[in-house]
Amino acid sequence: MKRHIYLKMKTVEEARQLFRSRFDPDTFLPPEEILTSAALGRVTAVPVFARLSSPHYHSAAMDGYAVAAEVTFGASQDRPKLLELGRQAFPVNTGNPLPSGTNAVIMVENVHPRDEATIQIEAGAYPWQHVRKVGEDLVAHEMVLPEKTEVTPYALAALLAAGVTRLLVRRRPRVVIIPTGDELISVAEIEAGEVPPGRVIEFNSLMLAALTEQLGALPEVRPIVPDRRQEIRAALAEAVQQGDMVIINAGSSAGTEDYTAQVIAELGEVLVHGVTMMPGKPTILGVVQGKPVMGNPGYPVSAALSFDQFAAPLLSDILGRHLPPRPTVAAQPAQKIPSKAGLEEFIRVTLGKVGERIMATPLPRGAGTITSLVRADGLIRIPAASEGVEAEKSVLTELLLSPELLEQTLVVIGSHDNTLDVLATLLRRHHPDLRLSSAHVGSTGGLLALQNHRAHLGGCHLFDPETGSYNVPYIKRLLPELPLKLINLVHRAQGLMVLPDNPKRIQGFQDLIRPGVQFSNRQRGSGTRILLDYQLAQLGIKPQAIQGYQQEEYTHMAVAVNVLSGAADAGLGIMAAARALGLKFIPVVTERYDLVVPETTFADGRFQKLWAIICSEEFKTTVAAMGGYDTRDTGAVMYEQ
Amino acid sequence: MKRHIYLKMKTVEEARQLFRSRFDPDTFLPPEEILTSAALGRVTAVPVFARLSSPHYHSAAMDGYAVAAEVTFGASQDRPKLLELGRQAFPVNTGNPLPSGTNAVIMVENVHPRDEATIQIEAGAYPWQHVRKVGEDLVAHEMVLPEKTEVTPYALAALLAAGVTRLLVRRRPRVVIIPTGDELISVAEIEAGEVPPGRVIEFNSLMLAALTEQLGALPEVRPIVPDRRQEIRAALAEAVQQGDMVIINAGSSAGTEDYTAQVIAELGEVLVHGVTMMPGKPTILGVVQGKPVMGNPGYPVSAALSFDQFAAPLLSDILGRHLPPRPTVAAQPAQKIPSKAGLEEFIRVTLGKVGERIMATPLPRGAGTITSLVRADGLIRIPAASEGVEAEKSVLTELLLSPELLEQTLVVIGSHDNTLDVLATLLRRHHPDLRLSSAHVGSTGGLLALQNHRAHLGGCHLFDPETGSYNVPYIKRLLPELPLKLINLVHRAQGLMVLPDNPKRIQGFQDLIRPGVQFSNRQRGSGTRILLDYQLAQLGIKPQAIQGYQQEEYTHMAVAVNVLSGAADAGLGIMAAARALGLKFIPVVTERYDLVVPETTFADGRFQKLWAIICSEEFKTTVAAMGGYDTRDTGAVMYEQ
Repeated sequence: MKRHIYLKMKTVEEARQLFRSRFDPDTFLPPEEILTSAALGRVTAVPVFARLSSPHYHSAAMDGYAVAAEVTFGASQDRPKLLELGRQAFPVNTGNPLPSGTNAVIMVENVHPRDEATIQIEAGAYPWQHVRKVGEDLVAHEMVLPEKTEVTPYALAALLAAGVTRLLVRRRPRVVIIPTGDELISVAEIEAGEVPPGRVIEFNSLMLAALTEQLGALPEVRPIVPDRRQEIRAALAEAVQQGDMVIINAGSSAGTEDYTAQVIAELGEVLVHGVTMMPGKPTILGVVQGKPVMGNPGYPVSAALSFDQFAAPLLSDILGRHLPPRPTVAAQPAQKIPSKAGLEEFIRVTLGKVGERIMATPLPRGAGTITSLVRADGLIRIPAASEGVEAEKSVLTELLLSPELLEQTLVVIGSHDNTLDVLATLLRRHHPDLRLSSAHVGSTGGLLALQNHRAHLGGCHLFDPETGSYNVPYIKRLLPELPLKLINLVHRAQGLMVLPDNPKRIQGFQDLIRPGVQFSNRQRGSGTRILLDYQLAQLGIKPQAIQGYQQEEYTHMAVAVNVLSGAADAGLGIMAAARALGLKFIPVVTERYDLVVPETTFADGRFQKLWAIICSEEFKTTVAAMGGYDTRDTGAVMYEQ
Repeated sequence: MKRHIYLKMKTVEEARQLFRSRFDPDTFLPPEEILTSAALGRVTAVPVFARLSSPHYHSAAMDGYAVAAEVTFGASQDRPKLLELGRQAFPVNTGNPLPSGTNAVIMVENVHPRDEATIQIEAGAYPWQHVRKVGEDLVAHEMVLPEKTEVTPYALAALLAAGVTRLLVRRRPRVVIIPTGDELISVAEIEAGEVPPGRVIEFNSLMLAALTEQLGALPEVRPIVPDRRQEIRAALAEAVQQGDMVIINAGSSAGTEDYTAQVIAELGEVLVHGVTMMPGKPTILGVVQGKPVMGNPGYPVSAALSFDQFAAPLLSDILGRHLPPRPTVAAQPAQKIPSKAGLEEFIRVTLGKVGERIMATPLPRGAGTITSLVRADGLIRIPAASEGVEAEKSVLTELLLSPELLEQTLVVIGSHDNTLDVLATLLRRHHPDLRLSSAHVGSTGGLLALQNHRAHLGGCHLFDPETGSYNVPYIKRLLPELPLKLINLVHRAQGLMVLPDNPKRIQGFQDLIRPGVQFSNRQRGSGTRILLDYQLAQLGIKPQAIQGYQQEEYTHMAVAVNVLSGAADAGLGIMAAARALGLKFIPVVTERYDLVVPETTFADGRFQKLWAIICSEEFKTTVAAMGGYDTRDTGAVMYEQ
């Protein structure tokens, strides 16, 4: 089934060096001359020298009278001097040229007009007082900007002050991006309608175009090319004619329909096929007609990271920008991060400062989870030789946000609920300087994080069947020593998910034992399963009587999909999962979702702002409008120890 | 002469609060709906929710075969299992939907084809192995982005993955910028020609437009309006109709032709006239028809700083961007910075890390020196109540560059010479990660900086008349204990500057005593004056015999201007000053310009790279081509101790 094999895999560093060594970025494109007034953000191709001095004449720096300083010497309050207007003193406004023979300006405030023709002064002026001398700011022929310098608003002003109205800048490379794949459907096509099963929205090319644009280069996205060798080849041949660099996305792997490496080899040379990085392993780097060509993997995170590692540095060099290394911090993973030896792994993490430590919580690692890049505050690179990072071991983390923001972040770890997003949104609305960062590791994971002081807050909905109560028994067991408050966020409905028209007329748990009703269950130990078993026991329903009780799924969504696809008639889950797939939701029980707030957090002004929002009508109204929630206890302290 | 007085001056903070309190940035402009594909850099107006789940079907995460996991249980190398294609196993490529009834994918590498219809496996698959489940990345109706969030390339991808093809973003405010002033000449007008004396290139409006654009707002620059009240009033009235904010530049002071405050008061309300800041004191903040109007001072640094303090925060709020405070460092001024009490002063400084200290060297403080903003690495704000900052006292400094760059900066302090710019340029060309920052405080200032370990290098051309030699006597006196090397940068010509056609036929010092020849002299103590006096003594010329010997100027350029304007027939100076004003330059003597390199610097790898450039043919050739320089000793060690 394999059509060809990877070249010997390269490390990220080897691959980057090999790719860059084939191009001289300083001569890759000829510079272009543009108007200075349109040069904001462009990069100088050569040093730029002043054409004029600034000022180009001695000019008044204040409103007042220009005089020859020598004439004023000796004036004092006791012995004022009179100056004749038009001969010894000349009215000037700021910026006016000094009349010939004058070399100082007396401020208007310090002058007493005597009559139409005479002024009186009570202090002498020193030579060049309140005068901007020729070349004070810029001297003609002096360098205004060195080469490879970005034209900032201030630089633009300085260039114009120096009479430089046109300048040579680095040309912006045109990057042609070719999406390939039979399964793809363009954004334009889905504009209104649905996406058919088996088809995937083509968004990688637009993401790569945006990354290209952000660097200052000129992206050009081509129409989707189907997985046919001849068509990909033709598209590449055309693209190298028109662009300065080509990115083919994807077909870079070794599957039956992965032609990218083949066509690059046919038209030019493949330098790298396979990099010891994850995500991003099937990256291809090549040259066709002297132009860089990149085969980007198809998963969005892979495509983004291989762009980041290989395309961005080369494009930056061509643009004359020095891409400084990202700032780093020493962060401690909130949990162990295992990693496959042999591949350098790029772990996306959220970051927050808890006490004196910067805690890193890994985001989902799949190459398909683009949200992991959206939510990432940092990147931990685990070397190929390593098998992972232990929890709480300090590890170098590349920052993707400004370091100042880490101080302004409240970290909540635990079970996820959509109302946390509402909370984050309202916090942002009312306190734009604060940030709520949430990591989703389940309720127990949240309590363990608090145990180890890895989070400011825990999000928790743990039902205890023995006492029939929420959260407190678990806190007493796991956090017996920690002074804390338990503050309710919401009560959340769990319910039965069924098809929209509810063909089996299911109304509650008792309907699950009816013949012909197929159930889809959650795995043992999950909150939803504990709740189900408790409710069944309360109702005296025997689990064995329920068809499908033994078949376990690990997420709300998997259960919902089973219902939607007809594999099951009902499943227990939260309203959000039902809504996501357009299922009917029949609430059967509510569970309590609380925030666990250690006293140290409670005393923190940042938390007080958050609490004020939780208690606000705005929060309660917004949450109530989502459906599936009850806010009767929202903001209330349910327990403290 | 004053037409009106300032309102009671406000502090920066008071003025900003007063201005912002008049507008609700969240409702100032209605949001607009745009295509997600065009949303890069825009800011969400409301939270954005997923329209579709991603993936929206269970899909293969690997190339291989889709199977029902249960069927594969028990397979091992010893007891392989056979699966029938099309019934028990289905070939899939990454991204394909799982056929009905399957819940796992076996990678193609782990499958042994037996015949056309059968494959063999040697290990079991676990449920959902190599499968991307529905909603794994995004669940429909879940929040993708909160409000007030910038659309990054990754966010753009996530939105499209979630089927969000249009979204509501904050509208970009239109900012109308009106340049005013009789003395102004537009950039278009000077394109080719010269700038007449008394006229000034109007570049502030383009700088303000660039600053506006950088924030994400839409600038619109109007033609220059002359200093006439009715015309300014008409321009403002029109601008508030068409824009969301108006900036009038300038006429904000209290001079005879400063009408800005008047016309704002006539058409609306003046909130602030006069802020206790320097530069930027004559700032006006007002409201006309519910729209913010700003009167910016005319000096470029004032205009930039008042934009930075008042326009930028308001525009950022309207754009929904939280402008985080600039990062700060504790820096130590390399020299005392006196400041006027009563005004908060914004000192532009260059920064560099010398040893463990970050040294701040003040740049020229005039509000007209736009280059001080171009060159600034940081901003020291001296409170109104303070009379300045002592040298080497730690002071909070707002960073204008990335903190990492401070580690990569070589700091040279001393006398300026244009060849230092060449050096900085070549360093940038060959080592884009390194930076040479130079501060110009004169040769002696440079030696004192080294004495106090405030710089890596000193730039020095001190002639000692007693020994007739350069630099070494001064080093022995000022730095007797410091192990160092003296490395020559260049020999520099000083010469007589005369009009281009040299009407008085001046060839050398002896011509200065001819009757009818007027000389322009430099001040006592300056290097040029020491050189002149030494040369005159050598030649046996009596200073008193030279007309104009007593009239002193403080800069090369002031002397050159005297020659150009006819006030003098000749002056002694460097070739760059003569070239700047198109004067003829008659070399009469060379002086030695050396770098003073302490051993600690010499041992530093960064200096070694700089030295390699100084010694390179490229540097010597470039310097020689400038004229007025001799590179015979360039790079050579002239002395060490």
